[in-house]
Amino acid sequence: MNTRPIIIPGALVATSLQQLRLSAPLVHCLTNDVVQSFTANVLLALGASPAMVVDPAEAAQFSAIADALLVNVGTLTRPHADAMLAAIHAANQAGKPWVLDPVAVGGLSWRTEFCLELIKLKPAAIRGNASEILALSGLSASGRGVDSGDDSLSALPAAQQLAHKTGAIVAITGETDYVTEGERSWAVAGGHQMMTRVVGTGCALSAVVAAFVALPGDRLDNVAAACRVMSCAGERACEVVKGPGSFAPEFLDNLYLINEEWLNGKGMQ
Amino acid sequence: MNTRPIIIPGALVATSLQQLRLSAPLVHCLTNDVVQSFTANVLLALGASPAMVVDPAEAAQFSAIADALLVNVGTLTRPHADAMLAAIHAANQAGKPWVLDPVAVGGLSWRTEFCLELIKLKPAAIRGNASEILALSGLSASGRGVDSGDDSLSALPAAQQLAHKTGAIVAITGETDYVTEGERSWAVAGGHQMMTRVVGTGCALSAVVAAFVALPGDRLDNVAAACRVMSCAGERACEVVKGPGSFAPEFLDNLYLINEEWLNGKGMQ
Amino acid sequence: MNTRPIIIPGALVATSLQQLRLSAPLVHCLTNDVVQSFTANVLLALGASPAMVVDPAEAAQFSAIADALLVNVGTLTRPHADAMLAAIHAANQAGKPWVLDPVAVGGLSWRTEFCLELIKLKPAAIRGNASEILALSGLSASGRGVDSGDDSLSALPAAQQLAHKTGAIVAITGETDYVTEGERSWAVAGGHQMMTRVVGTGCALSAVVAAFVALPGDRLDNVAAACRVMSCAGERACEVVKGPGSFAPEFLDNLYLINEEWLNGKGMQ
Repeated sequence: MNTRPIIIPGALVATSLQQLRLSAPLVHCLTNDVVQSFTANVLLALGASPAMVVDPAEAAQFSAIADALLVNVGTLTRPHADAMLAAIHAANQAGKPWVLDPVAVGGLSWRTEFCLELIKLKPAAIRGNASEILALSGLSASGRGVDSGDDSLSALPAAQQLAHKTGAIVAITGETDYVTEGERSWAVAGGHQMMTRVVGTGCALSAVVAAFVALPGDRLDNVAAACRVMSCAGERACEVVKGPGSFAPEFLDNLYLINEEWLNGKGMQ
Repeated sequence: MNTRPIIIPGALVATSLQQLRLSAPLVHCLTNDVVQSFTANVLLALGASPAMVVDPAEAAQFSAIADALLVNVGTLTRPHADAMLAAIHAANQAGKPWVLDPVAVGGLSWRTEFCLELIKLKPAAIRGNASEILALSGLSASGRGVDSGDDSLSALPAAQQLAHKTGAIVAITGETDYVTEGERSWAVAGGHQMMTRVVGTGCALSAVVAAFVALPGDRLDNVAAACRVMSCAGERACEVVKGPGSFAPEFLDNLYLINEEWLNGKGMQ
Repeated sequence: MNTRPIIIPGALVATSLQQLRLSAPLVHCLTNDVVQSFTANVLLALGASPAMVVDPAEAAQFSAIADALLVNVGTLTRPHADAMLAAIHAANQAGKPWVLDPVAVGGLSWRTEFCLELIKLKPAAIRGNASEILALSGLSASGRGVDSGDDSLSALPAAQQLAHKTGAIVAITGETDYVTEGERSWAVAGGHQMMTRVVGTGCALSAVVAAFVALPGDRLDNVAAACRVMSCAGERACEVVKGPGSFAPEFLDNLYLINEEWLNGKGMQ
């Protein structure tokens, strides 16, 4: 269980990406107020279709139509929580997958309780940093720290346990990302430190994960492909920009242009 | 009634734009959460003044002061709906024009009912895609599909009927835009397919329509001018950018720089 | 009291900036819906950490943890007001500073009453334009106009009075900014007219002020340093961009790159 996962091959990532562009999944995003525009632009650049429908009754109606649902608790309020629950139940009833981004779970009480309830509702995938995954898994209670300094590899056992408990694919993102279904796991290299100076790169990744869980084929591969597409577009952007301001346009352009050659190239140490 | 409308002349567009810059109308935007920042930046770049005042009591107070009001139902919630109704009634009482953007009407039940009520409240203009205009006109009930594949010309009879019924100028946007007051109509060419890969270009256009309905002069001409200013700035941006990320900065720069020469140039087939 | 304040020296600004980058303060932002993403990106580019936690109970829990709190009433609603009050009381109890941005105060009734209550709750700093500072000080009632045309120097006596009354550092921004604690004051030059064509530059400055009031040392110097860092990054961006669209990426890059040499250079007339 503790052998270090190997890096997902570029060809596998390219296959998932090709399917994404062919099917252009419609992703219902119930996400936080800060990142809505960036999230929508990331999905559009990549070839998916975003939609934000936030009234509880409409959210339920729409989740049954959309191909996947994203739930991100970054700016959780009571009305948002109601819409999320309504949308999740409708998605489950319609057989549509949903993804959880448990922003800041562990550090704040209400959202922690709320997310511990949500993971009982069969998410297809969960994407968080090491602290968030540790907090959701319950392992953090047994003495481990949950500060954001926890590195992604050290949280892999917690991610595997969370995957077993919930049936979800769990992605821990950090300098290297790890994606697991409990037994099998992938590592995803790439990305760049500058991406932490731009708001919403992690939140947008969760939306991209939602787009990729809507695809046919192996869901573990698809979630790891989502992580790699984003890290590849990000690392290439950081090679040419001088700061986090010019990163965002360049990153979105890269998501629009990314191809198999890029994915088979460097960054895949 | 079914002769194909002719393209609005660049000189007419330039006259409206000049008036906009001279008068710098203050536009009260009750719009969706995803596009607020982009909408404000589009209005500022063009020379108008945006303001978002969302509490129902303050929204009513502010609509009486502002030069025009935009109502966009993209992320409709009950509190948003209350603010919209309060602002519309205040605008009507103060003799200020208001514009409706019926995002996703036809596909979702509550907003469809809500917008069918709103169009009884004398909007100065309505801006939507073919599906949305068909849904609002009621013609879609008689067997026509309302999927977003409907092209803008085929929705022109519905737009004309909607204009007659509501007294509003109706703009259907698509590859070519059509703007009608029921009898007279304009076509607006230009734009670029890449604009569909950037969130908020349609929503921001509706805000620009609101700025232009605040101008003196022929309202049909002014609304068509709003559409043309945006398509001209967009098509020029797409000539030089490599993807949807670099589109947004270039597009905003173009709105700031756009002049009569550009409007009299190409794109006006 | 009416001698014109002198310009804050670049070396003083550079010292504050260095401290900011070393301590990377966590800023809890309760700000308006339009500028959340830009505000977060400004703080990240500069080296601070933004977080938006908006549910009243969570906002109170988080304000006790964060290094500073920003309260911006731009898109005030009743739930926002509840969260602001809860967060302010928690910040005060935990001894954490908070900053008020009184957007559009004076022009709209409810927010004016609300902000007049808030300034009794010991803000560490208040940042507004001349109209807003005049309205908060109560001086505007005595016949002075409060339109945005009021220039920042003419509002300095009102700012001084407001500083005395509240104990806050008061910053009036305009073509030249003035920052006062009642007795001592600084002037801050720089900036560029094009910054008024980009949404959120003022709101983001208030968030940066919140980051700087979390620093040790002289609070008047720190608040003036926040204003100068932003005006310096802005004026340099305006030298190279062709419009407000390309301003935002360049400005954020400059905040990331800004250094002592820039601060000691031109723009400090």
